[in-house]
Amino acid sequence: MALVKRLNDPWGEHKAVSPFLVQLGNSATLVEAFLASVLAEQEAAGTPPRLAEALRHAVLGGGKRFRPFLVFHSAALFGADKEAALPAAAALECIHCYSLVHDDLPAMDNDELRRGRPTVWKAYDEWTAILVGDALQALAFELISGSKGSGDPKARAELVYLLAVASGANGMVGGQVLDLEAGKLGARPDPTITDIMRLQALKTGKLITAACEMGAIVGGASFEQRAALKTYGEHLGAAFQISDDLLDAEGSSADVGKATGKDAAAGKATLIGMLGIAEARRYLDRSIASGIDALAIFGDKAEPLVEAARLMGRRES
Amino acid sequence: MALVKRLNDPWGEHKAVSPFLVQLGNSATLVEAFLASVLAEQEAAGTPPRLAEALRHAVLGGGKRFRPFLVFHSAALFGADKEAALPAAAALECIHCYSLVHDDLPAMDNDELRRGRPTVWKAYDEWTAILVGDALQALAFELISGSKGSGDPKARAELVYLLAVASGANGMVGGQVLDLEAGKLGARPDPTITDIMRLQALKTGKLITAACEMGAIVGGASFEQRAALKTYGEHLGAAFQISDDLLDAEGSSADVGKATGKDAAAGKATLIGMLGIAEARRYLDRSIASGIDALAIFGDKAEPLVEAARLMGRRES
Repeated sequence: MALVKRLNDPWGEHKAVSPFLVQLGNSATLVEAFLASVLAEQEAAGTPPRLAEALRHAVLGGGKRFRPFLVFHSAALFGADKEAALPAAAALECIHCYSLVHDDLPAMDNDELRRGRPTVWKAYDEWTAILVGDALQALAFELISGSKGSGDPKARAELVYLLAVASGANGMVGGQVLDLEAGKLGARPDPTITDIMRLQALKTGKLITAACEMGAIVGGASFEQRAALKTYGEHLGAAFQISDDLLDAEGSSADVGKATGKDAAAGKATLIGMLGIAEARRYLDRSIASGIDALAIFGDKAEPLVEAARLMGRRES
Repeated sequence: MALVKRLNDPWGEHKAVSPFLVQLGNSATLVEAFLASVLAEQEAAGTPPRLAEALRHAVLGGGKRFRPFLVFHSAALFGADKEAALPAAAALECIHCYSLVHDDLPAMDNDELRRGRPTVWKAYDEWTAILVGDALQALAFELISGSKGSGDPKARAELVYLLAVASGANGMVGGQVLDLEAGKLGARPDPTITDIMRLQALKTGKLITAACEMGAIVGGASFEQRAALKTYGEHLGAAFQISDDLLDAEGSSADVGKATGKDAAAGKATLIGMLGIAEARRYLDRSIASGIDALAIFGDKAEPLVEAARLMGRRES
């Protein structure tokens, strides 16, 4: 589990990290510092103290910041620096964080532990957690629409549109509904592999794909370049989810930093449960290969994104 | 309570309605039809059926659609027609509806009745209601950022920014935190009148003010014109809240269409509780007068907005 530990604690005690993990750590540091300054600025403008504190708990609790990494390195393909991509990267992280805060609620996944710390509802209470999520979603759209946002007004409106669609009823939230429907209502007693792939594509894939496309928008990509990044993002999202499922099936709570084995305990249908671990890993490998293929048009510049895809195959090793 | 009844049921059995109420009804019909078509389009693109149905329950349940009215008639001051203002108007209504769905949750206000119908969590369950709210917030930003949004890309980015700030941690959500903090935690055992006015300005006022300013952006207002509409919106928001409190204190559940007397039962400090009904009504009258004053620069064209302010003084009569 050494690599997993490094991923969950990239600035921790593990010194012998790969160049990729250094890049991941650097972009995480950058986005965390930016988010801290945004929250401090918002607080200075009058956020009620209880909400301000709970927002910091939700946003500044570490994490890999994988989606911001994708924004940075997609934008970098077109020469855009991290500074330019920062509002878009931070906005994606706000959406991701809000989804975790709401997912953890007793009425949803009922999780008390997240990244080794109490979840927001556990540290505060349910109503605070609901409102923290609501405020984070608004903050995401504030960050990319304002004059400090990434790109010109046209790019900013496009970023908002992309993020809103990816996170809404036909994206992340839709996937979460399908997931909870299956778990709580037994609405799909015999889900097919296609059902599960669709659920995961919505719940996890849409936001990961959006990260790559938002980088493309920030960088001013052509239509073809953006389409290539979208294809990459879709395969990466599939790989991400299946590697997550493998971690859940095989990992221990201490290594992963959150409760594990929950899918099985909740009777949730996963690709692993349906395919078996060996076939699931073959599907993972195919997704990684297809994702890397899509990056071919960018040549060597795409190395960080190629590495991100390869990492998915090593997360459970 | 005749006027109140008409307001809550403007297309109902009350034939002798004023020109203002006809305008209010027309704009409500327009925005409801637009929202219905947006949800149908989204559904055709693959919204999970349970979510689609709950979204319709949340959004298409009637209501005065007062915020869209303000967008339409603020934009009309500058010659913008309703068509142009429709995405902005609908976005505001999505934010308003999401806030009601979340406010009604057991962990928040624990309301089972809204506009005479079961609330979303009561009709479905808590997790569905949380996700309906989340999806509606995303939809709001989708509506105003896409190519079908109101105005050019610069206006669209500006609309997003304004709405995000008004509904976030230093706006509506912040006000809701202050409100629940007072009600549930007794965090402000001796709130001052200033405390309560700030709470209400955030919780209700920011979104009403945003409606007026969004109309200004859609219409291409000058800086001075937008500032005047902002001032109007702030006074209108104050008047709206206090007339709501008066309804709560004086109304019956059947007339108002939702539970009444809840503020007193919850021990919530309201301006009415602190000032008494007579002084509260004087404050209401002053807010209405100040709001109307701010509209002077627009002359007769502002009549619908003037009437909207005057209505606040008659809601409880």
